[in-house]
Amino acid sequence: MIKMVKKPLILVTNDDGITAPGIRTLIKVMNKIGDVVVVAPDSPQSGMGHAITVDSTLHVRREQIDNGPQMEYSTSGTPADCVKLAKHEILKRTPDLCVSGINHGSNASINVIYSGTMSAAIEAGIEGIPAIGFSLCDYNYDAKFSDLEHHVHVITKNVLEHGLPDGIVLNVNFPKLTKNEIKGIKICRQAKGNWEEVFDKRQNPQGKDYYWLSGKFVNLDKGEDTDDWALKNGYGSVVPVKFDLTAHHSIQLLNSWSLND
Amino acid sequence: MIKMVKKPLILVTNDDGITAPGIRTLIKVMNKIGDVVVVAPDSPQSGMGHAITVDSTLHVRREQIDNGPQMEYSTSGTPADCVKLAKHEILKRTPDLCVSGINHGSNASINVIYSGTMSAAIEAGIEGIPAIGFSLCDYNYDAKFSDLEHHVHVITKNVLEHGLPDGIVLNVNFPKLTKNEIKGIKICRQAKGNWEEVFDKRQNPQGKDYYWLSGKFVNLDKGEDTDDWALKNGYGSVVPVKFDLTAHHSIQLLNSWSLND
Repeated sequence: MIKMVKKPLILVTNDDGITAPGIRTLIKVMNKIGDVVVVAPDSPQSGMGHAITVDSTLHVRREQIDNGPQMEYSTSGTPADCVKLAKHEILKRTPDLCVSGINHGSNASINVIYSGTMSAAIEAGIEGIPAIGFSLCDYNYDAKFSDLEHHVHVITKNVLEHGLPDGIVLNVNFPKLTKNEIKGIKICRQAKGNWEEVFDKRQNPQGKDYYWLSGKFVNLDKGEDTDDWALKNGYGSVVPVKFDLTAHHSIQLLNSWSLND
Repeated sequence: MIKMVKKPLILVTNDDGITAPGIRTLIKVMNKIGDVVVVAPDSPQSGMGHAITVDSTLHVRREQIDNGPQMEYSTSGTPADCVKLAKHEILKRTPDLCVSGINHGSNASINVIYSGTMSAAIEAGIEGIPAIGFSLCDYNYDAKFSDLEHHVHVITKNVLEHGLPDGIVLNVNFPKLTKNEIKGIKICRQAKGNWEEVFDKRQNPQGKDYYWLSGKFVNLDKGEDTDDWALKNGYGSVVPVKFDLTAHHSIQLLNSWSLND
């Protein structure tokens, strides 16, 4: 008897917008694994964190961007909106997997907090869909996403095969290296770090001050089990990310305070 | 010898905008505790999650909204932008505390992920500033924030006295009850829950579809140690929140996968 294996339904999204090169690579890999539906922002949404659109309307449009077998929709919303629209309006059934990216630039360490790419993956996780966010630590427009195809394929197949624990999504980052230079994949924890902001203060033609947000990432963590360490040492990093933000180990301490005086 | 006690420098922000009634109550309480500087969005920013402004410019304006002793600035940015601007451009020194709110509506359970109020507190925490986000589970414009003054004062004084563990901020929510009805304050964990989205699909006058995001919160957690339980049972909830999102307990499991094939 031949066992019919149903192809997984895979939702693809990102925060760089539906035409970005990173999502086109991700779609190409996913087309080899399952039935692909793309629901992605119609314009770049970097730095959107977990924003959702509550104060304005949302639009959805059918798109055909290349000749692949995937169905594609662009939306006027954020990455988190795209996942909500996909699950509740566009898709006929809950997808088996949501993949987001491949983001142009690092979402390692504290960047996970600001990341639209990861907010889509986290939103999918909240809705009970196994999810992975992929990012490449290269901000150049001509970043070589094709070098990542093999690793993206292997990681995705592992998630489909094993599933993910309840309440967990994966934050996957790749170093700016060729396929052969990437030494392998490491499971990591999020490095402690932050951005040292520098606001670039300028004046408009009318003499009024305005600012551009700028700055540089500072790793405050010497551990060799972190995502930042892995990336700096030639490995792709996989961090299991949760959206129960409770610092459970601090509850006992806070219970010693006098909050009911 | 009389010991001069330096007053703490307190940064106040929110996501409902600088003129919202909740932040005016928060400023009033903080003026009794320290030197207050307000840096808040010039318009409502609800649902902004941890968005930051990277693709457009930021403006800052001096404001005088009431006759209190605080200094006030409005910005064109998100709550997280406000904290960054305050620390790096507006304030002469790092504040001793950042308080955000009092938000109009619950930030308990999974709402912490979507919350601009909490993103400001988390941003402060990332920058090393002890921080508290306050919210009232009442969406009415005339919500009685004044009923919370005592509890906000006590919680704030406790944070200033004890400090907060590294990497932790507080998510404080109050039930929609009068001062005397609130039974007390409980230290809680984040309830497991999500939003069941309903997209309200409409047509514009030209016949084109558009959507409004809507839905209702569903608690998936029967625990009696959660924020949602406390709020439903007449208590204010305090959840210690962390921004290291690593699911440490899943690292061992993921290390059993075949990611390097």
